Amino acid sequence: MSTMLWEQIIVDTEDRIPLYKQISQQFEQMVHEGRLKPGVRLPSERKMAEILRVSRMTLTLAYEEMKSRGIVRSQQGSGTFIMKGPRIDTSEQAITWHTNFAYQTDSVNLAMEEIMRFGRDSNLIHLAGVGTAAEVHPGIDFSQCFAEHLRKNPILLQLPAPTKGYEPLIHEVQSWLQDGGILAEEKEIMIVSGAMQGLDLISRLFLGPDDYVIMEDPGFLAASDAFAATGAKILRITHDREGIKVDSIENLLMQFPVKFIYINPTFHNPTGITMSLQRRKKLLEIAKKYRVPIVEDDPNSLLYYKRKPVPSFKSLDKDHLVIHLQSFSKYLFPTIRVAVLVAPVGIISNLVKIKQRVDLHSNNLTQIAVHGYLAEGRLHKHVKKLREAYDIRLALIKKILSNKPNLECVFPDGGVFLWCKIPKGISSERLLEIALKKGVSFVPGSWMSGVGMYENYIRLAFTHPPPEALEKGIDLIDQAINEYYSYQY
Amino acid sequence: MSTMLWEQIIVDTEDRIPLYKQISQQFEQMVHEGRLKPGVRLPSERKMAEILRVSRMTLTLAYEEMKSRGIVRSQQGSGTFIMKGPRIDTSEQAITWHTNFAYQTDSVNLAMEEIMRFGRDSNLIHLAGVGTAAEVHPGIDFSQCFAEHLRKNPILLQLPAPTKGYEPLIHEVQSWLQDGGILAEEKEIMIVSGAMQGLDLISRLFLGPDDYVIMEDPGFLAASDAFAATGAKILRITHDREGIKVDSIENLLMQFPVKFIYINPTFHNPTGITMSLQRRKKLLEIAKKYRVPIVEDDPNSLLYYKRKPVPSFKSLDKDHLVIHLQSFSKYLFPTIRVAVLVAPVGIISNLVKIKQRVDLHSNNLTQIAVHGYLAEGRLHKHVKKLREAYDIRLALIKKILSNKPNLECVFPDGGVFLWCKIPKGISSERLLEIALKKGVSFVPGSWMSGVGMYENYIRLAFTHPPPEALEKGIDLIDQAINEYYSYQY
Repeated sequence: MSTMLWEQIIVDTEDRIPLYKQISQQFEQMVHEGRLKPGVRLPSERKMAEILRVSRMTLTLAYEEMKSRGIVRSQQGSGTFIMKGPRIDTSEQAITWHTNFAYQTDSVNLAMEEIMRFGRDSNLIHLAGVGTAAEVHPGIDFSQCFAEHLRKNPILLQLPAPTKGYEPLIHEVQSWLQDGGILAEEKEIMIVSGAMQGLDLISRLFLGPDDYVIMEDPGFLAASDAFAATGAKILRITHDREGIKVDSIENLLMQFPVKFIYINPTFHNPTGITMSLQRRKKLLEIAKKYRVPIVEDDPNSLLYYKRKPVPSFKSLDKDHLVIHLQSFSKYLFPTIRVAVLVAPVGIISNLVKIKQRVDLHSNNLTQIAVHGYLAEGRLHKHVKKLREAYDIRLALIKKILSNKPNLECVFPDGGVFLWCKIPKGISSERLLEIALKKGVSFVPGSWMSGVGMYENYIRLAFTHPPPEALEKGIDLIDQAINEYYSYQY
Repeated sequence: MSTMLWEQIIVDTEDRIPLYKQISQQFEQMVHEGRLKPGVRLPSERKMAEILRVSRMTLTLAYEEMKSRGIVRSQQGSGTFIMKGPRIDTSEQAITWHTNFAYQTDSVNLAMEEIMRFGRDSNLIHLAGVGTAAEVHPGIDFSQCFAEHLRKNPILLQLPAPTKGYEPLIHEVQSWLQDGGILAEEKEIMIVSGAMQGLDLISRLFLGPDDYVIMEDPGFLAASDAFAATGAKILRITHDREGIKVDSIENLLMQFPVKFIYINPTFHNPTGITMSLQRRKKLLEIAKKYRVPIVEDDPNSLLYYKRKPVPSFKSLDKDHLVIHLQSFSKYLFPTIRVAVLVAPVGIISNLVKIKQRVDLHSNNLTQIAVHGYLAEGRLHKHVKKLREAYDIRLALIKKILSNKPNLECVFPDGGVFLWCKIPKGISSERLLEIALKKGVSFVPGSWMSGVGMYENYIRLAFTHPPPEALEKGIDLIDQAINEYYSYQY
């Protein structure tokens, strides 16, 4: 396609509308006017930046904006394409269903889908998503425990289930939280179908199209996806070695009416960084000063390798500022879909009202199973085993990486992720294309960013494959890097 | 409170805004201006209708509108109260959380909450909500089956779970649907966490604040609740003996851009009515003519007592007009939270995208359990047992009611509900107050209505309590009716 079309895009630096918005708006108009047809491949960000005479970052923001608005979709390796426009669905005749949609499903992040797909592909060494290590998977122990409970007491299945959660489980969870330094009353605890549902309920309660939310960049994909679903604007804050930059947060709080701050402060996904105690206290102060809630996502702080991490925000919170999310996915297995949400009573009561409309209550069978496993102290034992196993894995990885200069990784003190820098100039999305052909998956850094950064970073989840597969997988990624420039697409 | 305040409400019949809206808007303004304080009890609809010189129906609509907007809340028996205004929550100091809410949780229907609460109150004979009869509860059989599966094959718990559902279950469900006359491909089937989640996903996909949806009146509470959550307007259609009035539907379709028609055509909740085949065909024609999807909620058409009901809409649908929801709650037990959604591929793919943001995927443990129970043909046998058991129960109820002239009930050909007329002038909501004190629960007809009708109807769910409790419960309701006028509040 000639560059003529692009040259019609006028960027006015005098205008009070941000440059990236000016660009994305004009693109959207072209699409609606049919001047840009679905499927059209856009020039690379670099090329387009030259054409429009704007900075690479402005262009990246413009493309991200268009992605989030479902105007374009980028496909790993192959570029960015126009999405919107009349869609054809051969399976429907009588109704053009899509014209009836109120929900902009084009805007749903494709990365999560991809990662889940990789996990189901048995031909791949899965370093993209988290799974429980086979050598310590609680499946057998867990199902025996549960089978016994069911055999002894099948009447369990006839119990009514409150929206807030299975009471005996909430009771057990209370002391489980206490072990972690969180003193919560039972009325401050609710059970949700995985942290994902917690994020969805919180998003629905607080966020609308005109709202702002702050989160880390890079940060948890599924979280930004849940926030984006409400139409809210996501403000991104970067990290340093001590964690998210608190000064930058205050800076944003002065300018935007932020609904809440979402953080994953311990063994952060994807960087593995743990926020320092000093900085946690500072963020709590600021949150109090600006009266902004903090949503603390804490999926794996019990998976420390050597020593316990600093206290959670919830345990430091004296002012009822914090909503705490703790999933059992990493402690048991991801498909269990049981997580705990701890918040002030006034929040729980409202989240419960929304949940009632969403699924009435979480599945009882699983809540009963987790309760049994928790009540008999088996989970505590199991988590200890996980810590040991993952410590061993990390040692193995350090050995493997010692002779892999292509992968500069930060080694965390706990958790399940490795954040690695790859040589400058290599696109992690294109690298993934090569790696997949070689039989290994990982998450490109850019997928974890809301502003198109971390192009030359990758996230490795090291808890799932057996040790030998782990070694092979990392070797394959290293090979992919070495062959990157010679590789034919 | 003097009627002076109400007389400030001006109703202009010339105005193009509907009368009921004029009224509700002025109420809302009074609340926001502080002229009406939270907790204030409003005059009865009859009284207020006189004061404002409008019809009772206009007033009912105005009050319903205010309820749905969270301006007022009605409490059974005790009247309608102003809700909105500065709320106090002692548990939070630093943040006035509620001011941060985007979701109007005041608008959540309280009836569902009540019904669930009744179900957990062991002192009550529970005729309000559905449960599986103890004499045929599959708990033991189901848990044995599941326990075996887990023991034999604990690796099951390590399987990845697609958002669309556990594949082996979808495969089994396909032939299960085929037995019911529904020919669907696996890609047209998805598993959801109960029909409630199905309704939530459908609502999110299709409905926004400016949209319209048609449903039955009286109709399924949780459905109207899910629709209302999107801000969409719900248009209500009444029944006759043949089911929902199709002519009235066409009438509405001519006037409003309706997103979909929600129906529960077989053993309808709460009336028990089954829509005739002729009328089903007519509705399908109209839906095709106006290009409006039909959402068919079909939770219990297999629970027929004597002969099979007429074919489902999905099985009659040649034009991909129908989204079919089928829950296992009534066939197994309500806390199982597994339901099937059948729709055109283009719909499934979009619902899956939304579900990914909502909970990533439904709980695998339960899907595995249901799969095992289904694959071994145990569910088919069990449903047959249910039919026999419920047929016996209905016979018992007919006997009990033969000498209860206060309760004029319609006896259905299947399902789990009895819809009974109580003597004119008796408020079913007030009657519930008395009945609860006597130790029995039921659902007042007005709770099932979106327009405040069916004041002198009640819904009895007869599948849960043991036969003797069932008889006692009905006796207590009869007593409550006899004591109604003499009863002291």
